[in-house]
Amino acid sequence: MDFTAKVISDFLQGTVEGDPATAVYDVAKIEEGKPGTLSFLANPKYEKYVYDSNASIIIVNKDFKPEKPVKATLIRVENAYKSFAALMNLYEKSKPKKSGISDHSSINNAAKLGKDLYIGEYSVISEGTVIGDNVAIHAQVYIGENVKIGNNAILYPGVKIYHDCVIGDNCIFHSGVVIGGDGFGFVPNDSNVYSKIPQLGNVIIEDGVEIGANSTVDRATMGSTIIRKGVKLDNLIMVAHNVEIGENTVIAAQTGIAGSTKLGENCLLGGQVGLAGHIKIAPGVKIGAQSGINNTVKKEGAVIMGSPAYDLQSFYKSYAVFRHLPELRKQLIDIDNRLRENEKQEQS
Amino acid sequence: MDFTAKVISDFLQGTVEGDPATAVYDVAKIEEGKPGTLSFLANPKYEKYVYDSNASIIIVNKDFKPEKPVKATLIRVENAYKSFAALMNLYEKSKPKKSGISDHSSINNAAKLGKDLYIGEYSVISEGTVIGDNVAIHAQVYIGENVKIGNNAILYPGVKIYHDCVIGDNCIFHSGVVIGGDGFGFVPNDSNVYSKIPQLGNVIIEDGVEIGANSTVDRATMGSTIIRKGVKLDNLIMVAHNVEIGENTVIAAQTGIAGSTKLGENCLLGGQVGLAGHIKIAPGVKIGAQSGINNTVKKEGAVIMGSPAYDLQSFYKSYAVFRHLPELRKQLIDIDNRLRENEKQEQS
Amino acid sequence: MDFTAKVISDFLQGTVEGDPATAVYDVAKIEEGKPGTLSFLANPKYEKYVYDSNASIIIVNKDFKPEKPVKATLIRVENAYKSFAALMNLYEKSKPKKSGISDHSSINNAAKLGKDLYIGEYSVISEGTVIGDNVAIHAQVYIGENVKIGNNAILYPGVKIYHDCVIGDNCIFHSGVVIGGDGFGFVPNDSNVYSKIPQLGNVIIEDGVEIGANSTVDRATMGSTIIRKGVKLDNLIMVAHNVEIGENTVIAAQTGIAGSTKLGENCLLGGQVGLAGHIKIAPGVKIGAQSGINNTVKKEGAVIMGSPAYDLQSFYKSYAVFRHLPELRKQLIDIDNRLRENEKQEQS
Repeated sequence: MDFTAKVISDFLQGTVEGDPATAVYDVAKIEEGKPGTLSFLANPKYEKYVYDSNASIIIVNKDFKPEKPVKATLIRVENAYKSFAALMNLYEKSKPKKSGISDHSSINNAAKLGKDLYIGEYSVISEGTVIGDNVAIHAQVYIGENVKIGNNAILYPGVKIYHDCVIGDNCIFHSGVVIGGDGFGFVPNDSNVYSKIPQLGNVIIEDGVEIGANSTVDRATMGSTIIRKGVKLDNLIMVAHNVEIGENTVIAAQTGIAGSTKLGENCLLGGQVGLAGHIKIAPGVKIGAQSGINNTVKKEGAVIMGSPAYDLQSFYKSYAVFRHLPELRKQLIDIDNRLRENEKQEQS
Repeated sequence: MDFTAKVISDFLQGTVEGDPATAVYDVAKIEEGKPGTLSFLANPKYEKYVYDSNASIIIVNKDFKPEKPVKATLIRVENAYKSFAALMNLYEKSKPKKSGISDHSSINNAAKLGKDLYIGEYSVISEGTVIGDNVAIHAQVYIGENVKIGNNAILYPGVKIYHDCVIGDNCIFHSGVVIGGDGFGFVPNDSNVYSKIPQLGNVIIEDGVEIGANSTVDRATMGSTIIRKGVKLDNLIMVAHNVEIGENTVIAAQTGIAGSTKLGENCLLGGQVGLAGHIKIAPGVKIGAQSGINNTVKKEGAVIMGSPAYDLQSFYKSYAVFRHLPELRKQLIDIDNRLRENEKQEQS
Repeated sequence: MDFTAKVISDFLQGTVEGDPATAVYDVAKIEEGKPGTLSFLANPKYEKYVYDSNASIIIVNKDFKPEKPVKATLIRVENAYKSFAALMNLYEKSKPKKSGISDHSSINNAAKLGKDLYIGEYSVISEGTVIGDNVAIHAQVYIGENVKIGNNAILYPGVKIYHDCVIGDNCIFHSGVVIGGDGFGFVPNDSNVYSKIPQLGNVIIEDGVEIGANSTVDRATMGSTIIRKGVKLDNLIMVAHNVEIGENTVIAAQTGIAGSTKLGENCLLGGQVGLAGHIKIAPGVKIGAQSGINNTVKKEGAVIMGSPAYDLQSFYKSYAVFRHLPELRKQLIDIDNRLRENEKQEQS
């Protein structure tokens, strides 16, 4: 990237304030702007940084009125955040795309490959697997037997997908993701020795799902573990066998969902949340970080917290008292003593 | 799989109720049964599904008395659950087994290999390593120097085992499992710069242990980190250096056990539990999800919860009051005011 | 290792008590000492083991006065712990070092390699990457485009480093570590469908950082995620985009740090801790295991606990009362009843 304010402004249909020849080669947060970088100001909270920022160009909203002189060249647009995001996407897409199929990969003859693939070094594609068009399978990826992968998927180095799993279009899996490992199912005998219940199901991941590094999604015991369209999972998340996650639900890192639990669409889960097995979470539920959910949540849009979790506001009110429990206890003892004193006097 | 009710019933020594020629090619949960699937009813809680299930065949207990007509062909057996599990195992075992040693693997000449091995693409077996019979080492597995692996082990794609570790018979490790990484040991100097304590021990995993995707078991500083016979670990679990886990203990996902802690046999740990270092947990202890254990638990079979954890029933009783702490506080203030009122009157 | 007491004592400038020809070939904890092993006694708490230990040689402090006869040969030194650590380091360094570049690795012609490298099987080094001297890149490692790696780094099997990341000297990354995966950034549209915010930044890891198995460090949205000199991260840790971790901070397993949070130097974090995004933690702060931090901590050296976390001592005092909440509630009801009784009497 090496663009002038004029070129960027023309692309964004904005207006330049300052030298139109100012050039940038990288992007930066406004508070970390360096010469040669492009930044933006959308949230008024960050306005203070605009005056001192060393960014060469700053994209601002049309109606931004500086209170002090600004060093940077400004580009005024309708919506600074959206314009900046559009540029980031443009930049991302302008990067050279990897292509071709490495000679050092192992592709079974009975696999069907789409067009315009990239397959990196030391990757394995097994018998019966079907890969769509424009898919990037980076190095050291493993794809088992009879897997289906839709168009435009990106599998980063080291992703592992077990046999029979189904992946939709436009999915992105980061390094170390494991899809389709066995569900955790065992039965104890009379001596408490556990034997394995075969895990005969699979994992179905619909279109547009992104999964972060080292997260794991287990295959179903029977039937399918299902991740619906548009779900976004952060790193180191555990999705157990037969779980179903509804459309556009977003889950932060290190959260775990136990077997057969069903999450509705449009839920938001904080990091390190734990959900017990065999429960249902209504659509639009928001769950605070580190919460533990051991029961079905029926109320759509509920906002919950705690372990076990309940209404978030109520949790915080209880926790505020919790912090003062020692004083509260002292007060109680004091009251008890005073009452005893009263009672004595009455008896006397 | 494509079996008739008659064939299945004969195998299970059951009796068919309905068309013995009914055929199935897959298994399903009773509530998700589709035509062509085989299901079962064991838990009376699920009886309601038996009447509407679209499963073609349902295995039921001998004494099951339907309250309404059932569409599916029934097979009556002594124990529906066990019979179904037996069929699942049969099905699993009937799958074609991978065999042979890939030309695209790297096997050191000084490694000793057993019979009937499968070694997948891009796997590495290092000097001095000894592998038993009938072991499946899938693609992209790494096995370091002087490792011992027993018979019938299955190492899924991408498992990493560092040097000198010892793995028993019949172990199953899922993708991304790391065995024998360095324990987390450092000593600070006077400027708080930490230097590494060499981790000279190993990991010993006994027979029949299954470890879920992306779990990690660190090598001992000295001596061995030990996982005893029949232990089952779920995904994303952390077992630190010098830990010992007793026979047939079962641990759910994302639990972490800090250095040198010893867990007894037959324990059950929920997900996201944390155990401090250098403590001991008695046999048969059950620990609720998300609990934190910072002290030795001496009582066999104790059932504990909380962070720090104590008796589970007591924890839930305290938590029930916790939820009402704001009201309790108001009540206390109210009592205090009334008492003050009393005291005033007495003085007057 | 196969050394006599005399050789070890000479190296440590100590004095032998017992047979100087006693030989050892391994090390052990004093409570697990076996014939042929070398152990040490530093912490008086472990003195009881010295009398029964089967270790052949035990290193003790100069002034140690046994209360009973000791079977083992003793070596007396100024500081038993430091002497033992010195021996462990010596032993570690004496191990044969892997060297050479595997023919079964894929190294781009436009990568620059330093001297005395080890590159294992099926590893990938991409275009524009620069590797320092004396670096060990074990098997199945992936290093993306334009990565810089300093001298003496050790990357264990299966480490993945995405493009443009910068790694300092003397770093150690264990198996399954993922550096530079995309930060978790999405914007919802009006139908709550999320679109990806391109993650254009990188990860910078300074000198002497060790990262445990299967931990993940995400790249910055813009700018850099930064891990400063001497930081030690345990296994399964999540470091999100744009986080900064100060020098010599040490973090236990399964902890997660959300986006843009800045941790000071010399902090100590327990396991399974969660830090919210966009907060700052002062230098020297200690955080108890499983704590959740949702606000900036300004006080240097603060010791905190709980979720949300506050002063550790206060947390434990509150928790002590929490355990007795049911009794406290009963007491309150009892007082209320007695007070009502009083009030009745007054009115009568």
